[in-house]
Amino acid sequence: MTRPKIYLFGDSITESSFSLGGWGASLAHHFSRTADVVLRGYSGYNTRWALKVLERVFPASQGVDGGTAKAPLALTVFFGANDACLPDRCSAFQHVPLQEYKRNLHSIVSFFKKLWPTTLVLLITPPPIDEEARCRHPYVENPQGLPERTNNAAGEYAKACIAVAGEFGIPVVDIWNKMQQHPEWETYYLSDGLHLTESGNQVVFEEVITKLRDEGLSLESIPVDLPLINDIDPKDPLKAFLH
Amino acid sequence: MTRPKIYLFGDSITESSFSLGGWGASLAHHFSRTADVVLRGYSGYNTRWALKVLERVFPASQGVDGGTAKAPLALTVFFGANDACLPDRCSAFQHVPLQEYKRNLHSIVSFFKKLWPTTLVLLITPPPIDEEARCRHPYVENPQGLPERTNNAAGEYAKACIAVAGEFGIPVVDIWNKMQQHPEWETYYLSDGLHLTESGNQVVFEEVITKLRDEGLSLESIPVDLPLINDIDPKDPLKAFLH
Repeated sequence: MTRPKIYLFGDSITESSFSLGGWGASLAHHFSRTADVVLRGYSGYNTRWALKVLERVFPASQGVDGGTAKAPLALTVFFGANDACLPDRCSAFQHVPLQEYKRNLHSIVSFFKKLWPTTLVLLITPPPIDEEARCRHPYVENPQGLPERTNNAAGEYAKACIAVAGEFGIPVVDIWNKMQQHPEWETYYLSDGLHLTESGNQVVFEEVITKLRDEGLSLESIPVDLPLINDIDPKDPLKAFLH
Repeated sequence: MTRPKIYLFGDSITESSFSLGGWGASLAHHFSRTADVVLRGYSGYNTRWALKVLERVFPASQGVDGGTAKAPLALTVFFGANDACLPDRCSAFQHVPLQEYKRNLHSIVSFFKKLWPTTLVLLITPPPIDEEARCRHPYVENPQGLPERTNNAAGEYAKACIAVAGEFGIPVVDIWNKMQQHPEWETYYLSDGLHLTESGNQVVFEEVITKLRDEGLSLESIPVDLPLINDIDPKDPLKAFLH
């Protein structure tokens, strides 16, 4: 058998999702006998750059007409944290205007819908921003001393992401809202005002498997790859391996 | 581009390698922009069962003559902990005699050498066994109250694994010896006398990347997938994405 795949496509919060306690690693562990979780995270990228590389990351030969590779079960699209960098602050080169972000995200989803019509595309909003921590942890020189991202701006991009999901009728994980329900979300979920703590990773993992389950993708619905040890008869183990 | 793959093939210590702090997840994180780490771990399996399923896990269509999929960069083969179950104890149904283990492991490596002549096959020995902990944590009913595995027996299988690596001239990670160099290896590296703690996982991860590096596979030698954020010119970001 060829195991089905789940792709994770996004920015640094996706690229780092296999670090200690990361949401990608947790997904891979959760589906350890059922699906391959494939990492396509590109630190620093926004939707404008993602659009530029889409066909290189997901070549047509993997798609519906072109090749032998089957459509993945699911794919997460998790961009917006970099698009939401403010245009007049130190990370301005990553900024993408809100309306362009929305168009770009729409184009990205359209691309996948055409390449893999049966694949569940799951959007994830950018996380909330702790502006105080962002002042303390700039990624580039920051002579202004101001946060390069604000929580309000991230919230506008989160809303746009949710709107795009609505246009396609696909699920979306709204972690911008979800995380802020915790009284100490700034430090409980975020390590540097943007990236995720182990608890933040856990929330994303749980929200993703909940949405996948809502759409019919769960350990109960995806076939297990080869007999489980508990299904092997200790009196005649090889019986389990007959075709 | 299609990212190269690194397969992890083995028993429960492979299957659980994406749990918190797991060696598989650490590998996936280490190679997050360079290679896909693909999990093929089958809890409870010995080499006899592995041989039965080899062609289903790695179908010929993925191989040298059959299909479009490229040979993986590397593949870890990590069996022996279950083969080394004692034939007169509670997990006897998993036992494989030492000489058969050696033949089976030889056949498994031969299979990969034929399927993917260019792929680096890396053997990993079974870990040492803490017999006291094994008495306390049986996986099946254990009316005798005796450990189903002993450290001496595991050591014999580790030696056989090393011998097979020698026959092929391929690298081997000898974690049976390596772990016992720590004065408190029983609890520092093992959680239940057999499976790995976070520290045990860390050792396996470090040993694997060291062996891969010795054979020329490292972050320096494998191309990065798409421009890194530090290689993108803030004054003209899109330049980085021209073909």
